[in-house]
Amino acid sequence: MMPTLETSTAPEMAQAEQLFESLCRHTTDVPGITRDTYGAGENVAHHLMAQTARDLGLEVATDAAGNLYMTLLGRDPSAPQILIGSHLDSVPHGGNYDGAAGVVAGLMVLARLKRLGRIPARSVTVMGCRAEEVCWFPAPYIGSRAAFGLLPPDLLDNLKRADTGLSLAEHMRMSGFQPERLRQGEAYLRPQHIHCYLELHIEQGPALVDARIPVGIVTGIRGSLRYRHCRIQGRYAHAGAVPRHLRQDAVLAGVEFVHALEQHWLQREADGIDFVATVGEFSTNPEHHTLTKVPGEVQFTMDIRSEDNSALLATDVYLRGVAADIGQRRGVTIDLGELTNALPGLMDVNLRQKLKTLAQQQGIPTMAMASGAGHDCAVFANQGIPTAMVFVRNENGSHNADEAMDMMDFALGWQLLAALVDELS
Amino acid sequence: MMPTLETSTAPEMAQAEQLFESLCRHTTDVPGITRDTYGAGENVAHHLMAQTARDLGLEVATDAAGNLYMTLLGRDPSAPQILIGSHLDSVPHGGNYDGAAGVVAGLMVLARLKRLGRIPARSVTVMGCRAEEVCWFPAPYIGSRAAFGLLPPDLLDNLKRADTGLSLAEHMRMSGFQPERLRQGEAYLRPQHIHCYLELHIEQGPALVDARIPVGIVTGIRGSLRYRHCRIQGRYAHAGAVPRHLRQDAVLAGVEFVHALEQHWLQREADGIDFVATVGEFSTNPEHHTLTKVPGEVQFTMDIRSEDNSALLATDVYLRGVAADIGQRRGVTIDLGELTNALPGLMDVNLRQKLKTLAQQQGIPTMAMASGAGHDCAVFANQGIPTAMVFVRNENGSHNADEAMDMMDFALGWQLLAALVDELS
Repeated sequence: MMPTLETSTAPEMAQAEQLFESLCRHTTDVPGITRDTYGAGENVAHHLMAQTARDLGLEVATDAAGNLYMTLLGRDPSAPQILIGSHLDSVPHGGNYDGAAGVVAGLMVLARLKRLGRIPARSVTVMGCRAEEVCWFPAPYIGSRAAFGLLPPDLLDNLKRADTGLSLAEHMRMSGFQPERLRQGEAYLRPQHIHCYLELHIEQGPALVDARIPVGIVTGIRGSLRYRHCRIQGRYAHAGAVPRHLRQDAVLAGVEFVHALEQHWLQREADGIDFVATVGEFSTNPEHHTLTKVPGEVQFTMDIRSEDNSALLATDVYLRGVAADIGQRRGVTIDLGELTNALPGLMDVNLRQKLKTLAQQQGIPTMAMASGAGHDCAVFANQGIPTAMVFVRNENGSHNADEAMDMMDFALGWQLLAALVDELS
Repeated sequence: MMPTLETSTAPEMAQAEQLFESLCRHTTDVPGITRDTYGAGENVAHHLMAQTARDLGLEVATDAAGNLYMTLLGRDPSAPQILIGSHLDSVPHGGNYDGAAGVVAGLMVLARLKRLGRIPARSVTVMGCRAEEVCWFPAPYIGSRAAFGLLPPDLLDNLKRADTGLSLAEHMRMSGFQPERLRQGEAYLRPQHIHCYLELHIEQGPALVDARIPVGIVTGIRGSLRYRHCRIQGRYAHAGAVPRHLRQDAVLAGVEFVHALEQHWLQREADGIDFVATVGEFSTNPEHHTLTKVPGEVQFTMDIRSEDNSALLATDVYLRGVAADIGQRRGVTIDLGELTNALPGLMDVNLRQKLKTLAQQQGIPTMAMASGAGHDCAVFANQGIPTAMVFVRNENGSHNADEAMDMMDFALGWQLLAALVDELS
C-alpha cells in the first residue's frame, strides 16, 4: 500500500524534476553523467543550484573551498541553524542522483517554505558540498572537512587529481576558490552554530529494493577496518609427492582463515551486531604458482565494516588469534599487515526517533539501516552535531550510469525531510 | 639401527660413486646439473652409460627413439627378460640423482653379476629411457611410450621444446635417431617378451626423510584428476552497502568449495584411501578486484591424485555436487571446466611382497608408499607387465639443485634391487 502524498508537494516535485533534468543535460557524459571534482562538471552543478536559490530569493554564499550555502533566514538569525546538505560531484559516468538528490531535496524544502510564506524560527541552510567522491582526489570528505577548517594543509599540494595530475590547490584556484585561506585553517562553519545536519541520499546498495521499502532511516555510517596487504607465507612443494601432514599450503591456510572470518560474521549477525566483511582480493603468486605445486604464497585484502567500533576492534583481536593458530597448525605465517580504522559516524537517536514517528504519521514505509558507504554527514556527526540521514530506494546501486531512483520514492523521502525541518524550525 | 651392508657390494658402490661424479662433471650447470631432453646434456649422459656398459662387456643397443639398452645375456636369451630402467634427462638446474640413480643402480646390478661370474637364467637389460621430464616437451613418458610404438605420431611434429622451439622429431634427428620409424608405429619392446620391469628412483617428496626410513617400496604411481580452468562467476558490488544475503561473493564461494575439498581429503584419509589434493592457483581477477568491492570472479586449479582411479572418479562426482550446491546457495556459478584423468599405474603385488620379504631378510628398513610423481614404470604397468619400484630417501625434494641422496641409502636400495634380480633370474 503506497501512501498518498500531500497534494501541496506537487509544485516542488515538478521543480525537482526540472532541476534533475537540467543537471543531467549540463553534465551528460555517455553513458551517464560526469561531475568532476573541482572541474567543469561539479562547477556547473554548483552554478545551477546557486541560480535556483537566487531565483527562490535565498541568501547565497560560498566558502574558501567552494562549498555552496543557500539560506532561508529564520526569525532569529543568531540561533543555531539547520543544515541540509549533500555533495554535487559524481564518479566518471555516474548516475544523476548520487549526491545531487540531497541538494535538490534541501532546496525544495526551502522552496516549499517560501511558497507557503513560512519564516522558520531558525535559519535553514542548504549546503552543496565539494569533493565527496574519492575517485578524483584520494581522500575522504574534502569539502565538508574544509568547511570546518579540518583539512590537513599538506593535502592541498599532495593530493593530485587522478586524471589531470594537478594538485587540489591548483584545481581549487582554477575553480575560483582560495586554498591559501584553508592553509591557515580558516573555518567557515562552527559546530556550536549548527543545530543539526540533515542529509538525504540515494541508497548505494540493494537493501531497500530487496525489502520493497521506499525510504531508509540511517542508523550510522559504518566505520571500517581495512587490511590492504595480508600475506601468507607457506612453502612450495611437489603436488603429488608430499603427504598432507608435511605440507605448508598457503591456499588451504588462507581458506581456513577466510572461512573463520565468515563464521565470525554469521555469529555477529546472530548477536544482532552490524557487520559486513569483504575479501576483495585473494591471490596466489602468479610468478611462482602452478597447477602441480603446493602453493607457497597468498596475498589478500580485508575490508570489514560496522557501526560499532568496539566490535571492529574485537574482530581485529579475534582475527589475529585465528591467524596465529592456523599458522602454527599449518606451518605457515599469516601476516595481516598494516591496518587502518575509520571511525563510524553515528546518527542522532532523537532525530532518528522523530523521523520514525513522522513517517508513521504520514504513512511512509521506512526501515532502519546502516550506511555501508561513507557520507559527509559522518564529518558532522563526529563533531558532535546531531545528524540524521534519509535514504531513498534506488535500483542498480550507485557509482554507475544505471542508478535508477523513482521520483515517487524521492517524493516520499523529501516529504519526510520537510516534515522534520517543519518540526525543528 | 642401520643394517650392515654385505661387504661384497663395496666394489659396485665405489664404481657407482665414480659414475655419479662423472655424470655431474659432464653436465654441471650451476646451480646443479642440466641434462636437456634430446640435447647435449641427455646425450652425454647416455654416452657415459653406454661406455660403462661396453667396459663391463654388456651388449649395447638403442631404438629409433634413442632409448639405451645394456644387456647381460641369460642362459636362455629367448626367455622373457628382466628390464631395469629409469631416465637420464633432468630438469634445468636439477639434481644429479633424479633418473640417473636408477640407471646407475641397474648397471651396478649387472656389474655385480659379472664380477661374481653369474650368468642369469634370463637376460637382464638396463634401459636408459629418453625424455621423461615434461619441462622440455610437454607430454609424459615420451621415451618409454616410443619404445612400445605407443607415441602418437602427431606429437613428433607438434611438440616443441620449450627453450629451442624445435620439434621433437627435429631434436631426435639432431641427436642421431629415427623419428620416421616411430611415425610408422615401430615397437622395439613387446610386453610378452618382458618378464618384469624394475625401477629405482630417489623419492621426490619428504616422506622417507620424515619417517627416518631409507628405502620405500612403491605401491603405485598415483593417477590424477587435473582441473586447469575452474572459474567462479559471482557479482561485483559495494563492499560496505550490500548486506550479506544479497551478495554473490566469488571468494567466499571459492573458500567454501576448497574447504569442502579439504574435508573430503580428511575423510578419504580416515577411510584409508590414498589421496592428495592441491589448489595450486587461486586468484581474483586483477583487472577488476579491489579492496572495497565484493569480488565477482575467481579462477583456480585443482590437481588431485590417488592410486585408486575409482576414488578419483567418485571425487569428481562429489565435487560437481558441491559446486552446484554452493552455486545455488550463494548465487554464483562454479564451473570446474575441462578435466584430464591420468590413470594410476599399480605396482605388482607379488613383486612388492618379494621386495618386502627380501628387505626383512637383509635387515633393510622399508615402508610402503605411493608415488605422487609420474615415472616411466607407469607405462610398463599399464601394459600388464609386472612392475616394481624402489624409492631411495632424498633430502630437499627433487627438480632442484639441492636434492641430496646419501650414498648409504642408495646402497641399501641397490642391495634390495640386486637381491630381487637374483631371485627372479
